[in-house]
Amino acid sequence: VKMVHNGIEYGVMQLIAEVYHIMHKNLNMNNEEIHDVFSNWQKGKLSSYLVEITAAIFLKKDELVPNHFLVDAILDKASQKGTGKWTSIEGLNLGVPIPTIDAGVNARNFSNQKSLRTALTNGKELSGQKSTHSLTIDELENALYFSIICAYIQGFSMIQEASNVYNYDVDCLQVAKTWRGGCIIKADLLDHFISVFSKNQRDLHLLQTSDFADLLKENKAGLKKTVAIAQQNEVPVIGLSSALNYHNSLHSATLPANLIQAQRDFFGAHTYQRTDRPGTFHSDWEQKS
Amino acid sequence: VKMVHNGIEYGVMQLIAEVYHIMHKNLNMNNEEIHDVFSNWQKGKLSSYLVEITAAIFLKKDELVPNHFLVDAILDKASQKGTGKWTSIEGLNLGVPIPTIDAGVNARNFSNQKSLRTALTNGKELSGQKSTHSLTIDELENALYFSIICAYIQGFSMIQEASNVYNYDVDCLQVAKTWRGGCIIKADLLDHFISVFSKNQRDLHLLQTSDFADLLKENKAGLKKTVAIAQQNEVPVIGLSSALNYHNSLHSATLPANLIQAQRDFFGAHTYQRTDRPGTFHSDWEQKS
Repeated sequence: VKMVHNGIEYGVMQLIAEVYHIMHKNLNMNNEEIHDVFSNWQKGKLSSYLVEITAAIFLKKDELVPNHFLVDAILDKASQKGTGKWTSIEGLNLGVPIPTIDAGVNARNFSNQKSLRTALTNGKELSGQKSTHSLTIDELENALYFSIICAYIQGFSMIQEASNVYNYDVDCLQVAKTWRGGCIIKADLLDHFISVFSKNQRDLHLLQTSDFADLLKENKAGLKKTVAIAQQNEVPVIGLSSALNYHNSLHSATLPANLIQAQRDFFGAHTYQRTDRPGTFHSDWEQKS
Repeated sequence: VKMVHNGIEYGVMQLIAEVYHIMHKNLNMNNEEIHDVFSNWQKGKLSSYLVEITAAIFLKKDELVPNHFLVDAILDKASQKGTGKWTSIEGLNLGVPIPTIDAGVNARNFSNQKSLRTALTNGKELSGQKSTHSLTIDELENALYFSIICAYIQGFSMIQEASNVYNYDVDCLQVAKTWRGGCIIKADLLDHFISVFSKNQRDLHLLQTSDFADLLKENKAGLKKTVAIAQQNEVPVIGLSSALNYHNSLHSATLPANLIQAQRDFFGAHTYQRTDRPGTFHSDWEQKS
């Protein structure tokens, strides 16, 4: 549970960082303006320990360079102590997709390729071309809220699956209450998890509960617009787009994996299942029929 | 090398599957039309074993249901024997981002959540709303080509890093030639890798070579448009967007990891580096300055 806590933490920190990147590069906002936004968000649905400290960070002055903000002096290489990576590996072993947590881990690895990034860009920043579409702060708030919820849902889904597979008998209601009480991922949104777990709907995936189905539906348009504008402007959004693809993948009645099974059966005789009858099948794909 | 070969294979198969999904759901193309496209692509820059068999798959008739295509009868749950997962885990252990390979693995895990996907959608397909923007087959070809090249670059980068870390002394030129000679990821585009590795530019990342810098630049617009339209229509594109974010991340002179380091120093005193002087620093973030 502590490992997954840290995995969610990696995901949420990356999502906040991407929203900061967009405010900075796409919306040309300065640190005081960015502080104001996070400070206002802390009064609303995003209220959480990480948003609270993020707001404070943007006001901190640099003690070594007068009249500058400290955040601007910090090298953009993020370290890690390994629990995010550990979570991603265990997610893979369990077969539970946790792409927003993975994004947090991968983003730190991208950040560490600083010399390559500098060489590939000659050290030049993005031209900062404004999109033809405008993005509002409310849309950005919805995008962040949607994505953070997805990071928590992925983490809880992983705990539920691990609990089943390894017979841990984890009480997710107690986990949500403990995190709500105080930790790095303490957040008001945990109240929704406490509410859902209190109803003891063990047969439902979190995405199937009306609480989360409604919350995600309300906030999805903001995420779609944010991701579209960032990608148009070539700002990397690996966390935000992972949340969008997570939701879209699980809301696809059919995925194109039928083609993958056909390819596997073609080159390796790995067989396939059919939609219309039980059993395992193999075809001679090179024979014209 | 064989493990990474299979990781690349997972990535490429997922990219082809996503392009098929877009043709099917966004462009309302039927199997014969999709066959024609892959068949034409097989004559051009995408020529490869996997594109060749994909073209053939779309013409294969169902022997159990007359006048139907077999691909439509195959259940959309993709199996895996584990080498893709193994590649993703080793990428994490090496700290080398291979997100397009990871996408291939995660997509199979999403595909296996068939009962959840059916429940979340009541079994209903996407409404299939057409985008306001049109997408051409040439743009789709460029998107696939860009993304497949990224999958190979990620795989070779991982081999290079593993070779350095574990003193394997792998000869990437020989690897590229071997794969070119015949294997599941045999592809004409390997000629570019053979050309680059022949020049023995050991100090350069593959993205820094003029060959790949130019190829990716030429094809990026198609990928941006494809991803934008798919995401607008809520078609999942975890592989295609991973390639876009991979390129954008490594072409960002600065990433917002300075904020992540500030957060880590705030809550855990994990320290940070500065851009303007050497050393390791820690600040008291709660003290107003």
